[in-house]
Amino acid sequence: MKLYNFFRSSASYRVRIALNLKGLQYEHVPIHLRRDGGEQHLSTYKVLNPQEIIPTLEDDGRIVTQSLAIIEYLEERCPEPPLLPHDPADRALVRSMALAVACEIHPLQNLRVLNYLKDVLRHSEEETQAWGRHWITLGLTALEQIVQAVPERGNFCFGNTPTLADLSLVPQLYNARRFSCDLSACPTLVQIDATCRALPAFANAAPENQPDAE
Amino acid sequence: MKLYNFFRSSASYRVRIALNLKGLQYEHVPIHLRRDGGEQHLSTYKVLNPQEIIPTLEDDGRIVTQSLAIIEYLEERCPEPPLLPHDPADRALVRSMALAVACEIHPLQNLRVLNYLKDVLRHSEEETQAWGRHWITLGLTALEQIVQAVPERGNFCFGNTPTLADLSLVPQLYNARRFSCDLSACPTLVQIDATCRALPAFANAAPENQPDAE
Repeated sequence: MKLYNFFRSSASYRVRIALNLKGLQYEHVPIHLRRDGGEQHLSTYKVLNPQEIIPTLEDDGRIVTQSLAIIEYLEERCPEPPLLPHDPADRALVRSMALAVACEIHPLQNLRVLNYLKDVLRHSEEETQAWGRHWITLGLTALEQIVQAVPERGNFCFGNTPTLADLSLVPQLYNARRFSCDLSACPTLVQIDATCRALPAFANAAPENQPDAE
Repeated sequence: MKLYNFFRSSASYRVRIALNLKGLQYEHVPIHLRRDGGEQHLSTYKVLNPQEIIPTLEDDGRIVTQSLAIIEYLEERCPEPPLLPHDPADRALVRSMALAVACEIHPLQNLRVLNYLKDVLRHSEEETQAWGRHWITLGLTALEQIVQAVPERGNFCFGNTPTLADLSLVPQLYNARRFSCDLSACPTLVQIDATCRALPAFANAAPENQPDAE
């Protein structure tokens, strides 16, 4: 397997954790995102991923894009250890937590959106950072309430083993710290994040431990 | 089943199509989104959905949020007719198309983001509309290339029956027309959208056919 990814990309980070938890070896192919252009726009990469975003997984000649689709693919191909619970309503709860990050927070604070705010709408660095903090804080505060309400919670977002929800949470908290967000309203998420990051599968997927880290 | 939703919300529209395709009866509970406040912020609704967004499904006492998690839940509970293909790589492709809409397009053009652009960043109606058009056009142009490259395409995004990808596409094209987007770069998507909307399950889920339509 090859994973086209970038050390700092939180969507890439999610997939790296999944690969590590499932014990799957992969080749790390760095795609360098840059403020002005970037390798995701190269014609050789666009053939694999017309959205010009990362990550992209190549497995046995098949190309899979979108981090959550990649993780569901890995879950179906390599079911152990499971990243989703067994019961359909529980699976839906875990998926909804992951989507609360992937659909409501991350899309609003990624690089191309920040670039549009600066380059087209002429906002300052401070206004752009405040935009990012607003959406991250709003989304994580809601997620904190969702996680607190889970009766079966245990040490992770759901239960006592990492799920798709934790794979989405940890990279988003990494971003929250980059944006200097106030996380005092999210004590449960902060605790789960610390528990996760103590595990080798999460630690080895962290941005600072990637071969392309700056 | 109860579906808390709003006629014009495209995330709600996705779930209504899924329920119709699977022949599931449900109670339509309208949650009126408004420019200034809205029923999604009522304390009675926030208990069900701390994100204060729609839709929310209530099924046999269980609450499920996030449209794609709801549809995966319906797929697991009521597998026929399937909304995902059988092969894991094909399932990943269909899921990636749905996520290309749900993670890259829709989050950037929904009501609360447009409100922030107007109310906090003081942009005009025209600048806000241009923002929406930019992200919709960028995302749909990439999706057109992804769909064109599917060898097994048939009449829908994947194959000859509707999948999760079509359930995401049709509501997004509805939004694209509301934003007056130029869809000339997306002839395949426009054709698939027309094919879908001719089916009763899609037509009955359309915003204008909901009991709360204005």
